[in-house]
Amino acid sequence: MPKTHTFPTNIVHYTWDVQHKPVLTIESGDTVMFDTREVTDNQFTIDSTTASIGELDWSRVYPLAGPIYIEGAEPGDTLAVEILDLKAKSWGWTAVLPGLGLLAEEFPDAYLRTFDLSDGEYIHFREDIKVPIEPFLGTMGVCPKDANGSPIMPPGTFGGNLDTRQLMIGTTLYLPVQEIGALFSCGDGHAAQGDGEVCVSALECPMFSSLRFTLIKGKTIPSPQFQTKGALTPKVNHAGFYGTTGVGPDLMAASQDALRGMVDHIAETYDLPKIDAYLLSSLCVDLKISEIVDAGQYVVSAVLPLAVFESK
Amino acid sequence: MPKTHTFPTNIVHYTWDVQHKPVLTIESGDTVMFDTREVTDNQFTIDSTTASIGELDWSRVYPLAGPIYIEGAEPGDTLAVEILDLKAKSWGWTAVLPGLGLLAEEFPDAYLRTFDLSDGEYIHFREDIKVPIEPFLGTMGVCPKDANGSPIMPPGTFGGNLDTRQLMIGTTLYLPVQEIGALFSCGDGHAAQGDGEVCVSALECPMFSSLRFTLIKGKTIPSPQFQTKGALTPKVNHAGFYGTTGVGPDLMAASQDALRGMVDHIAETYDLPKIDAYLLSSLCVDLKISEIVDAGQYVVSAVLPLAVFESK
Repeated sequence: MPKTHTFPTNIVHYTWDVQHKPVLTIESGDTVMFDTREVTDNQFTIDSTTASIGELDWSRVYPLAGPIYIEGAEPGDTLAVEILDLKAKSWGWTAVLPGLGLLAEEFPDAYLRTFDLSDGEYIHFREDIKVPIEPFLGTMGVCPKDANGSPIMPPGTFGGNLDTRQLMIGTTLYLPVQEIGALFSCGDGHAAQGDGEVCVSALECPMFSSLRFTLIKGKTIPSPQFQTKGALTPKVNHAGFYGTTGVGPDLMAASQDALRGMVDHIAETYDLPKIDAYLLSSLCVDLKISEIVDAGQYVVSAVLPLAVFESK
Repeated sequence: MPKTHTFPTNIVHYTWDVQHKPVLTIESGDTVMFDTREVTDNQFTIDSTTASIGELDWSRVYPLAGPIYIEGAEPGDTLAVEILDLKAKSWGWTAVLPGLGLLAEEFPDAYLRTFDLSDGEYIHFREDIKVPIEPFLGTMGVCPKDANGSPIMPPGTFGGNLDTRQLMIGTTLYLPVQEIGALFSCGDGHAAQGDGEVCVSALECPMFSSLRFTLIKGKTIPSPQFQTKGALTPKVNHAGFYGTTGVGPDLMAASQDALRGMVDHIAETYDLPKIDAYLLSSLCVDLKISEIVDAGQYVVSAVLPLAVFESK
């Protein structure tokens, strides 16, 4: 009979490490409910300001709930994680963190905004700009093979900080088990994020979640895979989209060009400071590789859902 | 009073060149109707086979309809191209062309398939696999500045071979004018293509199209932009999506890894030869940059619409 467990809220870890002692041991088929902290480990609150960024203790960033030991899991298996429920808690933040982000040179200065999410449906970015809340956990992963105090920020074939917005309610994430017991951990709730997470922050928030774990013995995958339940951007598909492009021989530079075009477009069209256009892009603009095969000149598109500008 | 012109079917050009004589001269606000050849310039037919690839005269690939001179257009302006109508004609092809494509090393051999498109709604990839027909022109562009016999295949900030699937009916494409008169050309009809066009071919087809041109004086954009009318993948949003990922420090390698995972997933799950899974990916799998900011480890996702496997 599958069980439902509640993960304790007072235990977190800040690195990937095979030595972290499992906090829960579960059977395949069990469900775990989490109440995870936002990514700064409660260092930010809704009253935080840009000055708070300078005071961050980075050793406490990425507090993960875990590890969870799944009975019978061993390298070569796949761990299926069904995302049964997610709920962004009452507030969140987004920020430019100096030195990070896709346009780090153009936006060198720290900038933080906090948001009340108690509406439950939208992030009120400005009175007339509403970004739908479409929550997911930025970080879900099994422990990387032989991990020994590795930082959480870089994701890998083990999953981890995938920051992949399709991992929403109804999606099943498949992770390749790398250590005995799988040693799953999660955290880093996002209330909204576009494909790319371009400014380096999503709408970062504390989050409730409910995940069901199923072990698939002997099925091996090379890196994370997932299956969604329905449309990928269901809350914005009714309106059109505006796209900007970057064209060139380097996908990174093309991505930057597409984003620069988008930041300028948003700033000019909707009368937003450029830094806010950059934040807004991180919350709802999707980066697509439009073509990756044409004589060494690639096209990356940045695509903005116009639904966010329907004030109603 | 805006006019509607019909572009002659017997005139094409195979390079970008400021010396190509304009075939039509139109006013801002005019519409032009096109009946364009598929990208091999009628060298392939529905009866072509893999052997036909070896016989291709590459100098005739990319026959474009144009140039069209837009009165009053000059560098620094933007040309808006409203995509009023598109219709894939009765047949099309897709292929692996040796040396090209995102997985050129894994798939070194030529392979061609042709399809009857007279259904009008679907490409019948296999009895139980139907890819919706969502047509667009792979190539629409203004003449690049100082172009002097440049090949059509690489796109650029002038547009051209953008191979961007969002340029569907109802979308407006914005192009930065680079030469007096803009000198617009188009062709390379695609009945379906995923973001990426990963095997190097879309579902290539002859196409009817109707485009309305409007000059925006003094508006300058750095590279092509576009606005769609509605949802980006309206015919497949009702079902779920399956995603594979590539994770690593290089976006190109991550894209290849995501695609390898997808080809294997399709081949195993739907019992298709890998080369057909590769072609199918080119027709309907979308490449997304899931995150591009996490400590030098990026995530590219390849996303497959499960609607194509609903046989009905």
